[in-house]
Amino acid sequence: MKDLDFMAHAIELAKKGRRHVQPNPMVGCVIVKKNKIIGEGWHKAYGGAHAEINAIKNCKKKFGSKKASLLIKGADVYVNLEPCSIEKNTPPCTNTLIEYQIKRVICGTLDPNPSINGRGIKILKKAGIQTKIGLLKNECEELNRIFFTTQKKLRPYIILKGAQSIDGKIALKNGESNWISNSDSRKDSHHIRSRVKGILVGRETAEQDNPALTVRLSSKELGLRKNDAVPQPVKIILGSLKKSTKTKKLFAGSEKIIIGSKLPAKKIKNVEYLEYEKKDFLDRFMQDLLQRNISSILVEGGQQTLNAFIGKNLFDELVLYTAPMILGKGSKDTMSSKAPMSIKKSPRLKLIKLESFGDDIKTTYYNPNA
Amino acid sequence: MKDLDFMAHAIELAKKGRRHVQPNPMVGCVIVKKNKIIGEGWHKAYGGAHAEINAIKNCKKKFGSKKASLLIKGADVYVNLEPCSIEKNTPPCTNTLIEYQIKRVICGTLDPNPSINGRGIKILKKAGIQTKIGLLKNECEELNRIFFTTQKKLRPYIILKGAQSIDGKIALKNGESNWISNSDSRKDSHHIRSRVKGILVGRETAEQDNPALTVRLSSKELGLRKNDAVPQPVKIILGSLKKSTKTKKLFAGSEKIIIGSKLPAKKIKNVEYLEYEKKDFLDRFMQDLLQRNISSILVEGGQQTLNAFIGKNLFDELVLYTAPMILGKGSKDTMSSKAPMSIKKSPRLKLIKLESFGDDIKTTYYNPNA
Repeated sequence: MKDLDFMAHAIELAKKGRRHVQPNPMVGCVIVKKNKIIGEGWHKAYGGAHAEINAIKNCKKKFGSKKASLLIKGADVYVNLEPCSIEKNTPPCTNTLIEYQIKRVICGTLDPNPSINGRGIKILKKAGIQTKIGLLKNECEELNRIFFTTQKKLRPYIILKGAQSIDGKIALKNGESNWISNSDSRKDSHHIRSRVKGILVGRETAEQDNPALTVRLSSKELGLRKNDAVPQPVKIILGSLKKSTKTKKLFAGSEKIIIGSKLPAKKIKNVEYLEYEKKDFLDRFMQDLLQRNISSILVEGGQQTLNAFIGKNLFDELVLYTAPMILGKGSKDTMSSKAPMSIKKSPRLKLIKLESFGDDIKTTYYNPNA
Repeated sequence: MKDLDFMAHAIELAKKGRRHVQPNPMVGCVIVKKNKIIGEGWHKAYGGAHAEINAIKNCKKKFGSKKASLLIKGADVYVNLEPCSIEKNTPPCTNTLIEYQIKRVICGTLDPNPSINGRGIKILKKAGIQTKIGLLKNECEELNRIFFTTQKKLRPYIILKGAQSIDGKIALKNGESNWISNSDSRKDSHHIRSRVKGILVGRETAEQDNPALTVRLSSKELGLRKNDAVPQPVKIILGSLKKSTKTKKLFAGSEKIIIGSKLPAKKIKNVEYLEYEKKDFLDRFMQDLLQRNISSILVEGGQQTLNAFIGKNLFDELVLYTAPMILGKGSKDTMSSKAPMSIKKSPRLKLIKLESFGDDIKTTYYNPNA
């Protein structure tokens, strides 16, 4: 096996934490001696031990504490992200790696946090450990796309979702939008819900559609273990929503609700209010969500809300379900942002995934200009 | 091998005629005796021998004329389309099958021409030949989708093509539309051009874009043999086009040009004019094109022309290239047909194919309501 293979294995291990570590990154670690894996681990859950520590534990379990220590001494450590060098929920991993006298640390990427970026590597080098940075860099960045975004932009990773006709319409003139996409597409969208920490809709949509904003899939459908609870994102409303019969479903569950608005909203029990003085509070609202550990959100509409984000180029991912119908003249445009000056100058998104659900298609784009 | 396998083989043989038989259907034929193929053939080119005749020839070539006749007597014939029963360019195949004393004729579909539909089968039955209809019916209909359309609707098979942004815009407000789709998408669209008998654009597009309307791919790129000429469709203009410096490229080649218009157009040498009294002459124009053996057309725009076809529900296929950009407010809608009364009642197209070219996607839809 080669360097690349060990790093690829670390990435696979990291993915096992996908549903449990946000807002932390997914991290996997492989300890290698004489070209053989002697220990492996991953960050299992937010607040729990880091991947490096779990890999050492795994080695001890395999070989016993004493032999493990001898084996780890002089070994190579493969980890997709720079080892942590600060004490937060757990002691810094750099200390542990130094203590165990690791020979070489191979990282996929540096920590994206500007105040940390390279700090762990510096500490390791100072202690005489060899380091190598950037192995499978793209794959490691892609793996932790959410984490990298939150660290660099200090806001949640933002996914916009829309269901439209092939002519780019989100609703008829009278507002009717149920159901443009088919039931398989709608079911798929619950998978996206299950992967984010919050679902955001505008006040108007909340009042008109009375959405539950819950993940309505079973543990089995989500690929979870039988007894694992289905993750339910925080419900986030943009605008001064009042509780009423129109919004019954939204307030029905036990999930946390956050309302961000300019106007002070009428307070409801168990709802957190974030009130802003400026009319244009969207950037600030996003920062405040991240401070509440909401590291990823899915913006589900309606049209005005989607375009508030598009207009500010405030999104990292765009998911469109396109139904095979033409809604024609006078129907509502999904997107109504300002036209570019020329086609050449129009920023382009990056196509990431193309799927079909019956006659609907689903396109997933990244926004490289966010 | 089973009935299904022999018919599937006949379909594969039929496909070999794809580029050469329009407006005729593609037909393949397999002659089977004691579960073994003793002859096979296909319709190779418009005006040439039919598949059944070529299959008999193939049998004779294999076994010699005398032995072939003995073998064919009592054999089964698999053919994707009902054998012809009228003398047109060639003698009717039904006669030949009767002469050779075929035992059983297995057809995928009847001839869609209402005045023939079942006539050949009737003749065969009367002569004591067993018949079976409908084996791999869907596949056989799909194979000859163009032929079935021309026979049933008495107009060419109509493909609409557009390149749009993800928000369904075909151009900026000022008309700029070069280049929304990328070069790979544009290259792919030349493959579609190569498969139709005519390319249609509106007068305005012809004048504004000065398109050549030619297939700009090599024989090799088209999968043709080295010495095969690249097929060049007839150029068709909707509206009273004048020859000018603005339309230089259009008139540059040696391809036939047909102009259909209400106003009498200023006559140009080598151009055929179809003039109509009614303002709404599109249906009539299409019929006249088919009478000129133009069995399939690709409508490339512009926006008004596309919508003339969409508005009349006059299309069999819609091909959309969608580029990963948002052209936003004020840009021109690709489609501007009348909105449906409700989403439920909105007719839906059928997704046939989903492809990507770099970050562009290509969606191919059939129109089941045409």
